[in-house]
Amino acid sequence: MACAVITLTTDFGSVDSYVAEMKAAILGICANATIIDVTHQIEKFNVRMAAYVLACAAPYFPDGSIHVAVVDPGVGTKRMPIIVQTEKGFFVGPDNGVLTMAASRAEGERHVYEITNKELMLPNVSKTFHGRDIFAPTAAHLAKGTSPSRFGREVGGMISPGFARVIKRKDSLEGQIVHVDDFGNIITNVTEKDLEALKIGNEALVEVGGATLLLRLEKAYSDVEKQQPLAIIGSHGFLEISVNQGNAARVFKARVGTKVAVYLK
Amino acid sequence: MACAVITLTTDFGSVDSYVAEMKAAILGICANATIIDVTHQIEKFNVRMAAYVLACAAPYFPDGSIHVAVVDPGVGTKRMPIIVQTEKGFFVGPDNGVLTMAASRAEGERHVYEITNKELMLPNVSKTFHGRDIFAPTAAHLAKGTSPSRFGREVGGMISPGFARVIKRKDSLEGQIVHVDDFGNIITNVTEKDLEALKIGNEALVEVGGATLLLRLEKAYSDVEKQQPLAIIGSHGFLEISVNQGNAARVFKARVGTKVAVYLK
Amino acid sequence: MACAVITLTTDFGSVDSYVAEMKAAILGICANATIIDVTHQIEKFNVRMAAYVLACAAPYFPDGSIHVAVVDPGVGTKRMPIIVQTEKGFFVGPDNGVLTMAASRAEGERHVYEITNKELMLPNVSKTFHGRDIFAPTAAHLAKGTSPSRFGREVGGMISPGFARVIKRKDSLEGQIVHVDDFGNIITNVTEKDLEALKIGNEALVEVGGATLLLRLEKAYSDVEKQQPLAIIGSHGFLEISVNQGNAARVFKARVGTKVAVYLK
Repeated sequence: MACAVITLTTDFGSVDSYVAEMKAAILGICANATIIDVTHQIEKFNVRMAAYVLACAAPYFPDGSIHVAVVDPGVGTKRMPIIVQTEKGFFVGPDNGVLTMAASRAEGERHVYEITNKELMLPNVSKTFHGRDIFAPTAAHLAKGTSPSRFGREVGGMISPGFARVIKRKDSLEGQIVHVDDFGNIITNVTEKDLEALKIGNEALVEVGGATLLLRLEKAYSDVEKQQPLAIIGSHGFLEISVNQGNAARVFKARVGTKVAVYLK
Repeated sequence: MACAVITLTTDFGSVDSYVAEMKAAILGICANATIIDVTHQIEKFNVRMAAYVLACAAPYFPDGSIHVAVVDPGVGTKRMPIIVQTEKGFFVGPDNGVLTMAASRAEGERHVYEITNKELMLPNVSKTFHGRDIFAPTAAHLAKGTSPSRFGREVGGMISPGFARVIKRKDSLEGQIVHVDDFGNIITNVTEKDLEALKIGNEALVEVGGATLLLRLEKAYSDVEKQQPLAIIGSHGFLEISVNQGNAARVFKARVGTKVAVYLK
Repeated sequence: MACAVITLTTDFGSVDSYVAEMKAAILGICANATIIDVTHQIEKFNVRMAAYVLACAAPYFPDGSIHVAVVDPGVGTKRMPIIVQTEKGFFVGPDNGVLTMAASRAEGERHVYEITNKELMLPNVSKTFHGRDIFAPTAAHLAKGTSPSRFGREVGGMISPGFARVIKRKDSLEGQIVHVDDFGNIITNVTEKDLEALKIGNEALVEVGGATLLLRLEKAYSDVEKQQPLAIIGSHGFLEISVNQGNAARVFKARVGTKVAVYLK
């Protein structure tokens, strides 16, 4: 693990020295870590946006990568700092939902640890900057091979925020819209894996914004007529609802947070 | 080549996870590549701007560096993904002109290969994101020492877009304006090497926007009187036309795309 | 020193290739340097802002790190390019004050060297881009272990700009405001170390904008009543004056450059 990859996702922007301080803290502990910025341009305090962006990026990183996400409106309060251990790698950050979508996509067993061991933090932990004082050192120690159980006790699980929740019934799924892109494409929190578990095959009913639509899981926008809706698995592995050369969000009066249900036909 | 340098030039911006996904794809193949961002703030779909910025940066990188440029309005259509092999290093991207200015500046022989070998791409190649699925893996395999001929057949050459073309006659050159900077300085696609081949010495006639000017290849803005025009080789090695403490673009009614001719006096 | 850390702080922005060219120059000399961006979004020519941001970031980096700062309105004029050697690491840049705050915070002896040895610069030094041609190569050679005395003669010291100066008297300190953040918090150039030298204990008189206030060095904003002022050592180690849930800059009619004095009670 000498060259472990550590990724950073924050709302710190690119003007101040905050991100550099996190990297400094990492390099002071693990000099040969490979540090990759996912983004530091998350909207301030927008936990959902950070969760979605991290969930898009994480699957492409090598096994054993360590993903740190710090969008942390509750810093200094009682929300737990956690490590989520998966078979694909580690997720480190506040237990406010920012890690949940990404960690849930990783296959296999999951263990969650509360970070309490002060010996594995910076010597002076501020009340306002846990990214530098707790989460960066945690990632660096994990990169050096420190066992996650050394950071604190194992806990039951992580928070499951509304935007990460997919309710799985015998013959249906219920998720929600997590993002509407510049083209009006509707991106949901329902993953390819969720749909496979439902065994919907190539056709399904999708309910969004009060309308029920017969939708086929087509492969490309151009596989339907102009202005016709289609559901696809987007390039990041989430169920998306689009209108070929149109604006799906407008057609379906949909916005971030709107429920989306998928039924067997 | 264990520590080969891979540079990235794209129009992906810094908010989404696209750039991180390209880096993830690289690190999954070549864990110890040194990845350097040239810029991800190219104007969306502005191939010319990307070509110019890459041509500015590439000469400063160590021999053997691998330069990836992804400004790719034609992704998913028939434009070829290519590798350009030069004696200075490799250029990887779509064959839409984005690589041409940079690759043309490298000395010596050039070979161009079409990228078709799916074994050297990510397992699932999307229709919309060849940066991650084709170009990043290509760069990573090159960094590991894979021969460019293993990616696909050698082809005759790369596209020569208008903005990269310098017509060389016995006693003249014809190029064009590729960039006008914040100060109104006119930057052309004519390089120092082009001028040396013409053997113009220190004086030349320059035709731009209908006016013909006697211009000397001065060394600094302050070598001419205020409001006087001058031609210099700018700090990136391109012929620039400036007005000392004035705005050359305004004086010469010049814009990106305007022809510029250089004659022996 | 094979993996020395080099940090970069500039006003070059993220659109052009300038930062990449600096990194290229570094990698050409020291292929395995770890290069970390502090920020490239310093306001153009704002030396004070760069000095403050670098002073915030530098203390967190490992000993022996090399910090390059290039905000250089005087490039091409007679201001000296310098190396400041401290027991914590090196600071490299123009002698215009941009290094002074950061270098002054490092413990122990300091030596300042003028950079004049052309053999340790790029072959062609431009008049306009010393970041690439002088400062980046200097950092890379230092990273390889080249002694600072090989770059040029030792000089008496570095410039002490107004914004970095703290006047230390027997029972008082006089500094100034270097930054007012988004919340109206007043950040001064007075460091925790300065206050310890004064032996003020937990209480002091602070004079700012004509008003004299009895202020205790509280530990957190919430330790005083709403709308009450407090002085704290902020998370970067500078004396800050705040108003709990209020705007200190407005209350004290303070702005960047305003004097701040600290007295024993």
